[in-house]
Amino acid sequence: MPDKYPIVYISKEDMFATFKRILLQYGFLDTKASTCANIFTQNSLDGVYTHGVNRFPRFIKYLQNNWIQPNAEPSLVSKFGGIEIWDGNLGPGPTNASFITDKVIDLAAQNGIACIALKNTNHWMRGGFYAWQAAQKGFAFISWTNTIANMPAWGAIDAKLGNSPLVFGVPYQQEAIVLDMSMSQYSFGAMELAMLNDKLLDEYGGFNSDGELTKNPKDILNSRRPLPIGLWKGSGMALLLDIFATILSSGLSTQQISEQVTEISLSQIFIAIDLAKLPHFEQIQSIINGIIIDYEKSIPANTDFPAIYPGQRVLKNRKRNESNGIPVHQSVWNEINSF
Amino acid sequence: MPDKYPIVYISKEDMFATFKRILLQYGFLDTKASTCANIFTQNSLDGVYTHGVNRFPRFIKYLQNNWIQPNAEPSLVSKFGGIEIWDGNLGPGPTNASFITDKVIDLAAQNGIACIALKNTNHWMRGGFYAWQAAQKGFAFISWTNTIANMPAWGAIDAKLGNSPLVFGVPYQQEAIVLDMSMSQYSFGAMELAMLNDKLLDEYGGFNSDGELTKNPKDILNSRRPLPIGLWKGSGMALLLDIFATILSSGLSTQQISEQVTEISLSQIFIAIDLAKLPHFEQIQSIINGIIIDYEKSIPANTDFPAIYPGQRVLKNRKRNESNGIPVHQSVWNEINSF
Repeated sequence: MPDKYPIVYISKEDMFATFKRILLQYGFLDTKASTCANIFTQNSLDGVYTHGVNRFPRFIKYLQNNWIQPNAEPSLVSKFGGIEIWDGNLGPGPTNASFITDKVIDLAAQNGIACIALKNTNHWMRGGFYAWQAAQKGFAFISWTNTIANMPAWGAIDAKLGNSPLVFGVPYQQEAIVLDMSMSQYSFGAMELAMLNDKLLDEYGGFNSDGELTKNPKDILNSRRPLPIGLWKGSGMALLLDIFATILSSGLSTQQISEQVTEISLSQIFIAIDLAKLPHFEQIQSIINGIIIDYEKSIPANTDFPAIYPGQRVLKNRKRNESNGIPVHQSVWNEINSF
Repeated sequence: MPDKYPIVYISKEDMFATFKRILLQYGFLDTKASTCANIFTQNSLDGVYTHGVNRFPRFIKYLQNNWIQPNAEPSLVSKFGGIEIWDGNLGPGPTNASFITDKVIDLAAQNGIACIALKNTNHWMRGGFYAWQAAQKGFAFISWTNTIANMPAWGAIDAKLGNSPLVFGVPYQQEAIVLDMSMSQYSFGAMELAMLNDKLLDEYGGFNSDGELTKNPKDILNSRRPLPIGLWKGSGMALLLDIFATILSSGLSTQQISEQVTEISLSQIFIAIDLAKLPHFEQIQSIINGIIIDYEKSIPANTDFPAIYPGQRVLKNRKRNESNGIPVHQSVWNEINSF
C-alpha cells in the first residue's frame, strides 16, 4: 500500500457496516446490500483494494447515474442440459456474479460439469471472489468476463480488445488455489495505484504515446496501450474470451459495450465441475498437495522471493488485515463516508 | 521457413502416403495409420511444421523405444452426466486426442456442455488440430495438455512447470477461429527452428544462463528458462492448467511425467459446447463476424502488419502449401524416407 498518502486502518466489520449503510441508502434491499457490501469488504480484506474499497466510490457513481439497477435479479433465458443462459438485467455485477456462481454449482452437481453464460450484467469487481466461493464448496471453477475496449491487439495502437479477466479456482486444504488475471500485463487498477504512489511498474506494462515500451503507469494510462500478456498470445486470448462470452450469452461484445455510455452490460462465463462426482475424489487433495510441494521446491533467482502459488498472497493479506484492520487511503475513506 | 538449408516441396498426398507407409511398418493398423498420418500431414500443410513433418522422426523414435503403443485404444474409466474420464492406454497422442474430440462432441450434443479428462495419453503434436476438428462440426472447444517440466515458475531458475499448450476454437464462416498457444512466450519447436536457421527471436523469449533476458533461442534452450507469457501470469496459469488436467483425469502431473523415462503419459482436458443447442444459434455467425470486422479495423503500428485473428495465418499457409507443396528441409525428408 501507498507511501505518500495517510492511511487509516478499518476493521472488516466497520467497512462492511459502512458499505451496507450506503447501499441501503441507494435503494438496495437488505439482503442484496449485505451480499454486495460483503464482496467489497472481502476483496479489500484480501488485499485487492483496487477492486474493493478503492472502487466503491465509482460503484456509487454508477448507482447515482442509474447505470446499475440495485435490486434487479438475474432471470433464466434458456437451458439445455448443463448449459444455461441468464440475463443479469443490469443488476449489480457482484451480486449477479455471486448468484450465478451458486447456480452453476447447483447445475454442476446435477451434470458433473455446467456452464452459465450471463448477459447484461455489470462489472464483477474481482473475479477471484467467485472462484473462492466455488472452490470452498468443492468445485473446480473457470470464469471470465468481457470488458470495455481497453487494450490494442498486438501490433495495433487503438484499443479494440478488452483485457478480459479470467479466473481458475480449485479447493486446496481448507482454502483454495485461485488464479485471477486480466489479459493485460497489469490491471488498470494496479496501474492507477502505482501512478497514485508515483511508482514505476516492476516490468514493462505497455507503450507510451511514442510507441516505446515503458514502466511508467501514467504514460500507459494516457496512451491506452497496455501490453497484452505474452504479446500476441494474450491478444489472441482476449479476442477468444470475448467471442466465447458473447456468443454463448447472446449478450454484448467488447465492441458493443464500448458503444454504451460507460462500461455496462457485460457478458460473462461461469464453468463449474463437481469434484465430488469423480471416482478418485478422495485423492484429489493429496494430488494437489503433491503438485504444490514440488512447485514450492523451485529454486528462486532471488531467495527473498520464493515461488508462491496463485492465491497464496491473498491468504497472507487476509490474515494480516483481519488482525491490523484494512489499510485505506484516508482520502478514499473520507469520500466513502461522505455518501 | 529456413534460409540456409535446401528445401523440398512435398504434396500433401505424397506426405500422407509416406507417413502412412512408415506407420504401417511400425505396426499401426490401417485405420489408425491413416488417422495419424493425416494429422501429421494436416499440421504440416497448415504451416505448423514443428508439430508436423519436423516432429515425425521423433515420433518414430518413440515407437522404436516402445514408448507409444500404436494400436492402443482409449477406454472409458468413469462417467457422470457431462463429464467423463478416459484412459489413453499410452496410445499415440494424435489418434487418442482426435478420438476423444469426437467423443466430447457427442457428449456435448447430449448435455450442451461436456468435458473429457484423458489420462495416460501421449504428445498430441498440435492442439489446434482438434480445435479445428470440433469447430468445423459446430462446437465451441477448449482443450489443454500438460507436458514434461520445461519452464521455471516466474522468479525461479529450475523448470518445475510445463508450458501446457491451450487451445480455443469456434466455427467461423466455413472454417474456424483457433487460438493454439503454449504458456511459454515461444514454443520449443519455434525456438528450435529459429536456432536451426541461426535467427534471433523477434522478442525476448527467456533467460540465458546468466539470468539475463535474451532473444537467442540457443541460450534459452541451454538454460531451460523460457519466459512464461505475461511473466507471473502465464506461470500461474501453467500451474493451474496442470492441476486441472491432473485432478480431473487422475493421471500424471507435470512433476510425475518428468520422472518418466521421457515425455509420456500426459493428462489432457477436452471441453466442448454444442452451439446448435443455444436458442440464438442462427445469429452466432453474424455475431462473430461483427467482432472480427471491428477487430480488423485495428490501426496497426506498422501498416505491413495488420491485425490478424488466431487461425487466419493457418488458412493462408494451407492454401499456399496446397498449391506449392509443403516445404520440408531436405535433410528431414531424407531422414523420414530412411525409415
